[in-house]
Amino acid sequence: MNDSRRLGDCLDGQRFWEDVQSLASIGALHPKGIRRLALDAQDNQARLWLAEQGRALGCEAYYDDLGNVFIRRAGKDSSRAPFLIGSHLDSQPQAGIHDGALGVVAGLAVLRTLHDQGIDHLHPLEVVAWTNEEGARFVPGASGSSWFAGQRDYHEIASSLDDSSIRFSDALADCLDLLKEHGLTYRPKPFTPHAFLELHIEQGPVLETLGKPVGVVSGIQGVNWYEIEVKGQANHAGTTPLQARRDAFDSAHDLVSALKAAVFDQDDDLRFTIGKFSVWPDSVNTIAQRATFTIDLRHPSQTVLDALDARFHDLTKCQWGGCDVTLKVTSRVAPVAFPDSLLDVLHECARHYCPDTPELVSGAFHDAIHLAHVCPTAMLFTPCRQGLSHHPDEHIEREDAEVAARVLTDAATSLLG
Amino acid sequence: MNDSRRLGDCLDGQRFWEDVQSLASIGALHPKGIRRLALDAQDNQARLWLAEQGRALGCEAYYDDLGNVFIRRAGKDSSRAPFLIGSHLDSQPQAGIHDGALGVVAGLAVLRTLHDQGIDHLHPLEVVAWTNEEGARFVPGASGSSWFAGQRDYHEIASSLDDSSIRFSDALADCLDLLKEHGLTYRPKPFTPHAFLELHIEQGPVLETLGKPVGVVSGIQGVNWYEIEVKGQANHAGTTPLQARRDAFDSAHDLVSALKAAVFDQDDDLRFTIGKFSVWPDSVNTIAQRATFTIDLRHPSQTVLDALDARFHDLTKCQWGGCDVTLKVTSRVAPVAFPDSLLDVLHECARHYCPDTPELVSGAFHDAIHLAHVCPTAMLFTPCRQGLSHHPDEHIEREDAEVAARVLTDAATSLLG
Repeated sequence: MNDSRRLGDCLDGQRFWEDVQSLASIGALHPKGIRRLALDAQDNQARLWLAEQGRALGCEAYYDDLGNVFIRRAGKDSSRAPFLIGSHLDSQPQAGIHDGALGVVAGLAVLRTLHDQGIDHLHPLEVVAWTNEEGARFVPGASGSSWFAGQRDYHEIASSLDDSSIRFSDALADCLDLLKEHGLTYRPKPFTPHAFLELHIEQGPVLETLGKPVGVVSGIQGVNWYEIEVKGQANHAGTTPLQARRDAFDSAHDLVSALKAAVFDQDDDLRFTIGKFSVWPDSVNTIAQRATFTIDLRHPSQTVLDALDARFHDLTKCQWGGCDVTLKVTSRVAPVAFPDSLLDVLHECARHYCPDTPELVSGAFHDAIHLAHVCPTAMLFTPCRQGLSHHPDEHIEREDAEVAARVLTDAATSLLG
Repeated sequence: MNDSRRLGDCLDGQRFWEDVQSLASIGALHPKGIRRLALDAQDNQARLWLAEQGRALGCEAYYDDLGNVFIRRAGKDSSRAPFLIGSHLDSQPQAGIHDGALGVVAGLAVLRTLHDQGIDHLHPLEVVAWTNEEGARFVPGASGSSWFAGQRDYHEIASSLDDSSIRFSDALADCLDLLKEHGLTYRPKPFTPHAFLELHIEQGPVLETLGKPVGVVSGIQGVNWYEIEVKGQANHAGTTPLQARRDAFDSAHDLVSALKAAVFDQDDDLRFTIGKFSVWPDSVNTIAQRATFTIDLRHPSQTVLDALDARFHDLTKCQWGGCDVTLKVTSRVAPVAFPDSLLDVLHECARHYCPDTPELVSGAFHDAIHLAHVCPTAMLFTPCRQGLSHHPDEHIEREDAEVAARVLTDAATSLLG
């Protein structure tokens, strides 16, 4: 394989796109989109579809205690840790066809290419579909990957109830029974992979804006979530002079101005969002007694997050307009930086197809955030139109996805040894 | 009656306070407060109580087509227009005992004083209780006074439904039957009073802050209500860079800053309140697609209201942060200025009991706002603790209310001729 032609160039783009459409027919909505909620019949059908595709290529199909499915192409040394490529098959209730699915199909395309070209490799290669990444039916998400990576406890996951009070463990039991029936091999325990690569749609506007078909993801942002409550005194809007007020809305508004100023000259990687805001009693002619709002704060640097966290705590220590303020940190997720060694491989592979491949930080969580705790992990992004996702109108350009899949193929070749 | 002793000095404060407590026993809540919803059994009982008190003083008791009750003390010239004193008997669902009731009892105290002192006067004096001032059960309020003053149509009022779908006209019919049964005289039509005076608790903090037992009310603020909607684009809080957003919350926040700046250096009479604020989809990790809020704007000057109205329209003409903005005026009520001639009388009378009686603008609506359209009208305020009203904890100091009732008595004497 010389520099002018790589394994990725041999990937059958037509077959890849057919696989995308085949998978999209499972749980299809009309006129477009899919609904494959974690461990429902369609999600399970998608597991069986994957196993079937794999077995047609001579791969073995495995499942573990969380219903994660792996299709394994043997390596020259079966004692070596498998190199994993994959993503998730489950979806949001009214979803596009590419979120998660594209990464699984891309892994399948790598398998097909190795098979078609008769390539041997040292490490085994396994294409994986992680259970319940979305957290739409059972909260929280990333069940399969977080358990596999030892980040979350089985019993905590198993006891989750969906909106109809169906227990995760019951839905899981049905899934495992089905997989067993269809001859997948039970391999219950997690293991430490050689590495993990995940291809995913960007779900943001950057690649589309830059006109690039692929991006190398350097890591996943850390996220802090806050709830802030401002307590004033309700009163009559007509009779109470402005200077005699303890107006929770007005004070919250001023506090938000100060918070916005605190994040103002941060770099382009910062995400600061006030997505929820409520006042009580929420009456046109009553001064607000209480105002509450949330902050979603993201950045790839823990140092930046910590500094802003300290600043938010300072700002909310004092009263605002005579109102008491309380700040609660409701969630903290540390940023994850993917290892430079993997990023270098991805850049080198991408260069063959796409000059000046951008590097991005992921603003959304993916299964990769958990795998990063146990093995070298990285991601590739491919653009989706207007960054729209979690919606049937989610759309990608076939040519972009093919490029990303080709890059993935070459990176796999490099890492499989 | 020389300058050192006035009729108001003869008012029986003990009897006045006993009347306050007697009326408060009708519709009493435990441990405190009242519930007398418009045209309910307790509200009707209160009408009968008033009629009974009046008849014991030799007054005639009348009712009209809206259930307004009048107790009439004959004047020397029965052809002259009656001078009215009064307020309302109905209350909020969980109310204090003084809102409205105090003004009716004060009118009764004036009657008692004239009767006890054997004073004759030219114009008839009628103490009135207006139907449904509060608008708590049937919306909107001020039914009796607005109809009486030709400001609102009977059929519009009559067709109002309460939360249990009981029609106003049906509840009214029961009330009128009861009044007829108890021998009140049916006097269906409105008339033009000689003048109208209303004593009411301030429901604001000014008099208490100034340490004054009474205030002369110069008029009622005009009020404009607005609804503003900001429309952006919902998106993922993690993946969307700050500069690529059309964030409806962020834009609404900036717009509110500009609106606050527009009213910033107005005088102390201004009231500017954002009491309602909502975002949609109201999710911690989603950029707001839509933000809506209300403005309650009050001032005693139409000129000031018009200038700010024009400024608000200008500010909301353009986009904010790439988001579209719409402004809707949902209500406009013109300010009412009470006539100087009446204010002079009230100041003169107040001076005898309270040096430097303050002059205030009313921030709340009262029956007087409608009577002002048909006859010389004015109000007196008396303080309530912390301005709290519409709550069983509403509290007045007996001495303050007595002073206000004495001022009312002397003003009545002056106006009755």
